[in-house]
Amino acid sequence: MSGELFLAEIREQPTALARLLEQEHAYAAAAATMARRAPRTVRLVGHGTSDNAASYGVYAFGLLPGWTALRDSISLAVYYGAAVDVSDSVVIALSQSGRTPDVVAYVERTRARGALTVALTNEPDSDLGRAAEIVLPLAAGPERAVAATKTYVNQLAGLALLAAGAAGRGAAFADGLWGVTALMEDALPALERAVAPAASMFAFVGRMFVVGRGIEYATARELALKLTETCRVAAEPLTATDLAHGPVAALDPLFPVWAIASPDESLPAVVDAVQRARAAGAAIVASGSAASSVDGAAYRFAVPDPGDRLLAPLLSIVPGQLFAAALARVKGLDADSPVGLTKVTLAR
Amino acid sequence: MSGELFLAEIREQPTALARLLEQEHAYAAAAATMARRAPRTVRLVGHGTSDNAASYGVYAFGLLPGWTALRDSISLAVYYGAAVDVSDSVVIALSQSGRTPDVVAYVERTRARGALTVALTNEPDSDLGRAAEIVLPLAAGPERAVAATKTYVNQLAGLALLAAGAAGRGAAFADGLWGVTALMEDALPALERAVAPAASMFAFVGRMFVVGRGIEYATARELALKLTETCRVAAEPLTATDLAHGPVAALDPLFPVWAIASPDESLPAVVDAVQRARAAGAAIVASGSAASSVDGAAYRFAVPDPGDRLLAPLLSIVPGQLFAAALARVKGLDADSPVGLTKVTLAR
Repeated sequence: MSGELFLAEIREQPTALARLLEQEHAYAAAAATMARRAPRTVRLVGHGTSDNAASYGVYAFGLLPGWTALRDSISLAVYYGAAVDVSDSVVIALSQSGRTPDVVAYVERTRARGALTVALTNEPDSDLGRAAEIVLPLAAGPERAVAATKTYVNQLAGLALLAAGAAGRGAAFADGLWGVTALMEDALPALERAVAPAASMFAFVGRMFVVGRGIEYATARELALKLTETCRVAAEPLTATDLAHGPVAALDPLFPVWAIASPDESLPAVVDAVQRARAAGAAIVASGSAASSVDGAAYRFAVPDPGDRLLAPLLSIVPGQLFAAALARVKGLDADSPVGLTKVTLAR
Repeated sequence: MSGELFLAEIREQPTALARLLEQEHAYAAAAATMARRAPRTVRLVGHGTSDNAASYGVYAFGLLPGWTALRDSISLAVYYGAAVDVSDSVVIALSQSGRTPDVVAYVERTRARGALTVALTNEPDSDLGRAAEIVLPLAAGPERAVAATKTYVNQLAGLALLAAGAAGRGAAFADGLWGVTALMEDALPALERAVAPAASMFAFVGRMFVVGRGIEYATARELALKLTETCRVAAEPLTATDLAHGPVAALDPLFPVWAIASPDESLPAVVDAVQRARAAGAAIVASGSAASSVDGAAYRFAVPDPGDRLLAPLLSIVPGQLFAAALARVKGLDADSPVGLTKVTLAR
């Protein structure tokens, strides 16, 4: 049945995450190499889901070792050939397939210019794996659905291990991530049941905003991408503050907003944004372990609180993935193989 | 009549830009101070339109002095209190009103931690003006429409002057910008006439993608924001490459794509993206001085080529602004004062 692969890979995420954690020693060694380098900047590059994971990396490196991490412009380096000094940078390239052409080109270029280059990929034996100095396996196992799920969660975990390792907290974070595997495994069946009625209600929704802030902005981006590619909804990710700076004016009762709510310092901004959206008549969906803090939500999909704000996104994304799977089914779309997409994207 | 202020401020942009250029000496002095600092990173902060201008700054600083510029995370510093070293950074804060609370807080915090802080604001006598070490006037004149236009163009110009000045090319860029004022003045009347028929055709469009890449990604972001806030279209900005990594699957004949096409190194990626969108059945609109390179576009709004790729965005945005003004009028919406917005956004 169509969508089976996508759903199976969502369900498999705790197992896939455990496979990554078995590679903890490789991540710890890479983190130690990175820390010796004392980089001025960590340059994260990837497209699509990989770029969404990079959004999380900005916070993981900013909060754990206190490093400046940025989603670097690939075009600035690869297309425009900018002469930026990267010799004191660590580059982390994210690609499920290891074949994204301009990500490979970016790594080749920055490595030649003195950056320490690290690849996180599900395919270490790939162009990207050969281009980078350090190759770390995502170890998610073959991902057969076109829309990424388990590789996303493993990218978050890999970035968390690197950032925590660089801060001397790698072992504690690995323990926390093992805890996430158990929490996710326990939560999945009930979440899968919970999203079904909401998905039916959204069968004719054409556009949505997905709102998050800070650490959970990555979740908002990734959920919006899942809804766009598997359900053909025009779902745009916004920071809670972005919403107030213009887009709120487009909302109405046919234009719902999904809010990612985790109990960290960004929660008040998300709660404020939801109030603005409600005032515009928008229906609200909330997910995350602080979903109950979102007043007036038509649907709330709470997930367990893993106890550390940097672990939260691994769980916060799961209801959205399941919702996308359910909504695609309601709409008769094949979530395994969206029209116009292939598993390996070779676009420039 | 509603929308008159918005349209008047679009038409006023050449004059507003000239007012900024009369402040060239202040920008040159600030650029020299920045260059003496030899910053490791330039941290750009702003929300909404100001954040869109910051996207341009990434390329201006990357290509002119060869500095790493990033749209920094405000939440990382202000909400999470990350202990990132900013002592070797220049901060450039962008705010029309100078009153955006978390931008002011970001500047106060980074200044206390040793960054050189620069404010670009239309209101130098503001909280932001008082918080920053160097205050540069946007000099756009009072902006009375809620949706920003002339402050955006002046933010681009201000960032170009700073980046060019830091690279020892400030005077040449100022000359180029004076040339832009004349080109824009000449082009405005014909563009205003040209967008009207397309706007009628788009009266019932609910969702769009706006595609750009590299230097012109800022234009895509700003046009998408104008369409969202003044026309209530769910318009999402995407890099040309983002489109292929998922969102193309959502396209159909009711979901048009607007492409920003300038004759620089990113153009092949934009042309590729348009071909993918056409294959999905989407109607295409193209603007920019290379609009004629976009095969199969239903509408093309060409602008003059100012002769330097970093000057192009100041002209590329104009057809989109005019289109938004015309579409809002067709839809009976008041572009001067969109529902739910105020001129000064105090949201966190």
